[in-house]
Amino acid sequence: MPVTTLHPNLPISVEGQIAIVTIDRQEAMNAFDLGMWDGLADTMEAISAQEDLRCVIIRGATSAAFSAGADIKAFETERGSPESEATYARIFNRGMQSIRRCQHPVIAAIEGVCMGGGAGITTMCDFRVGGEGIRFGVTARKLSLWYSYAEMDPVIELVGTGVASEIFIEGRIFNGREAYEKGLLSRLVPDAEVQAEAMALALRLADGAPLSARFHKRAIQKLRGPLPLTQQEEDAVSDFALTEDFRNAVQAFKAKRKPVWQAR
Amino acid sequence: MPVTTLHPNLPISVEGQIAIVTIDRQEAMNAFDLGMWDGLADTMEAISAQEDLRCVIIRGATSAAFSAGADIKAFETERGSPESEATYARIFNRGMQSIRRCQHPVIAAIEGVCMGGGAGITTMCDFRVGGEGIRFGVTARKLSLWYSYAEMDPVIELVGTGVASEIFIEGRIFNGREAYEKGLLSRLVPDAEVQAEAMALALRLADGAPLSARFHKRAIQKLRGPLPLTQQEEDAVSDFALTEDFRNAVQAFKAKRKPVWQAR
Amino acid sequence: MPVTTLHPNLPISVEGQIAIVTIDRQEAMNAFDLGMWDGLADTMEAISAQEDLRCVIIRGATSAAFSAGADIKAFETERGSPESEATYARIFNRGMQSIRRCQHPVIAAIEGVCMGGGAGITTMCDFRVGGEGIRFGVTARKLSLWYSYAEMDPVIELVGTGVASEIFIEGRIFNGREAYEKGLLSRLVPDAEVQAEAMALALRLADGAPLSARFHKRAIQKLRGPLPLTQQEEDAVSDFALTEDFRNAVQAFKAKRKPVWQAR
Repeated sequence: MPVTTLHPNLPISVEGQIAIVTIDRQEAMNAFDLGMWDGLADTMEAISAQEDLRCVIIRGATSAAFSAGADIKAFETERGSPESEATYARIFNRGMQSIRRCQHPVIAAIEGVCMGGGAGITTMCDFRVGGEGIRFGVTARKLSLWYSYAEMDPVIELVGTGVASEIFIEGRIFNGREAYEKGLLSRLVPDAEVQAEAMALALRLADGAPLSARFHKRAIQKLRGPLPLTQQEEDAVSDFALTEDFRNAVQAFKAKRKPVWQAR
Repeated sequence: MPVTTLHPNLPISVEGQIAIVTIDRQEAMNAFDLGMWDGLADTMEAISAQEDLRCVIIRGATSAAFSAGADIKAFETERGSPESEATYARIFNRGMQSIRRCQHPVIAAIEGVCMGGGAGITTMCDFRVGGEGIRFGVTARKLSLWYSYAEMDPVIELVGTGVASEIFIEGRIFNGREAYEKGLLSRLVPDAEVQAEAMALALRLADGAPLSARFHKRAIQKLRGPLPLTQQEEDAVSDFALTEDFRNAVQAFKAKRKPVWQAR
Repeated sequence: MPVTTLHPNLPISVEGQIAIVTIDRQEAMNAFDLGMWDGLADTMEAISAQEDLRCVIIRGATSAAFSAGADIKAFETERGSPESEATYARIFNRGMQSIRRCQHPVIAAIEGVCMGGGAGITTMCDFRVGGEGIRFGVTARKLSLWYSYAEMDPVIELVGTGVASEIFIEGRIFNGREAYEKGLLSRLVPDAEVQAEAMALALRLADGAPLSARFHKRAIQKLRGPLPLTQQEEDAVSDFALTEDFRNAVQAFKAKRKPVWQAR
């Protein structure tokens, strides 16, 4: 039974033994609302269960954006209370982890805007093929958001603490050349060649021994061991949503003005 | 209450929400004697306690040196017995950790000589802005010194085991370009632009959400977990000071001759 | 008592305080059969025990190859049953770990082909000096092999999870420039200068304080802590040898045809 599209904004196509997931919500730069995180998890779980597949490509619907990340405009309805934050964190995390848990290797084909949770998706992937014109970074500094440990850890494992500090503390936005030099991209190519290069890599992966690829994907993750955190520490990440700064920042974003930080 | 200078060789100035700590002991290339490590800890703790600050820059007093590290000439009086080594290690470690424990992001603005404990200070910082003409490295190989685990670990987390081997085992001295390529610098700029670039980064950090920066700084460190060492193993680092090679090397340094190693 | 050659394909020479181990099995691109892994362990243990040595260089006998890795042609007799795999894993692992356990710093001088277990040897070393014309990578994807956790972990600690994914999941082959950019090489030089550069590094290491080098080598490894794996998980790595895909791949290699993967 072939995999079929499970969320309208995340259509699946299959070419040979390669599944292609397209993030397609062009009116919002492919930003994810809550339902799309759930849809991403459903999609990746369905693909992972297909034993005859060998590789997955995740890409944006057009060259303008891979994804702008979480949909900030939807935060007012989706987030902000302890209950809604617990729900958001659970669903968001399931979406993110579904990429790592997918038994097949996953490639992010990155063009254009790749910000916040969009950048997060790519660092959950096993490979990142990016174009020179990408804009890659996270925007926690603008909203007083805190990234979860489970999202930060793969970035540190990928590029070390120094580049992780640039990403999470500074909120630096990298172009393709910088992202490659910092180790964020597996491959750097001209923008027009991103999809072809991602497909070439996918075909190469599909040509190799599948049990070898699956074992090594799991092993690289397993060698990290469990994160050195209590459940309480992990849960406390959601506390940002109860701060004045976050509430004010969401209002300021809506009103298109700059927030004034109170550090509380 | 604004922060005030707590050690004469570590004057503090404040520009807006940015604290600037200057290492100013020019007759010794800004090398640290024991009192300065204590002073560094006092200084960083006072700055960390100031809730209205957003960022710290640590820099050398002139373009000649960030810091030459620990003052080797003072070793004869400060170090060498089990008691004095235990004291030195405690005070030195408090100075180093005060940078990591500071709740605000810390930037090292590196010009000129940045050696030994001076390089160590920069790897405790969250960001390193360096000039092309820097000389960056550690000199354990010349004195038969051993770096503490707590100092080595952030270097490994920053650049991996290969570059850490070049630094600690080989004692390689990097210029700015090499340090950047190896991941030791967050930014590489011409020497004359180091201070301006560090200030631009500080202003950018000050412009972002402070709770976001503080959380991510803590989180990047927390994800390391506790070091996999017994207290006994950590303490044994001081054993180098009881070796013949260390005693001879300090004498040789004083006499300006090359030590002959006995490996004991 | 000077060290003497312990395996005919792994001759030892000594220059001053530097031991040079040459991988010399030119008819097979310096590939290792089972006896050579045992010989490597014996060789490195003997060298480690020599207190007057300061450094080790491992190199290939000619510029054509450092080593092509494990000898696949010998797999039919050496591997494939649970018993033979347990034996192979034990001996292979002893060879690999003997490089890390050697108290002296070890340099890989890499020219030409450096594949599979040959690349593995180099990532067990403390330093890798490589030429521009090297071919560096692992070939698990062609044989449906799985690398052991103890071999994968040093690669992740060296270059992070992204490059490790390129190596183990994709099976990418890097030239010297790429290997340097990805952090796999400590030094990149023209092919004709590899041996001279490795010797210059060895002389530099021999010139430094030996107790300092030995402590820092141990400390960098110790900071990793124990691998987060059960013995059962570690042993399960050998299961690949019982899969249809591995058996077919060894037959296909012998028959010089391409294997058809079944993912079982």
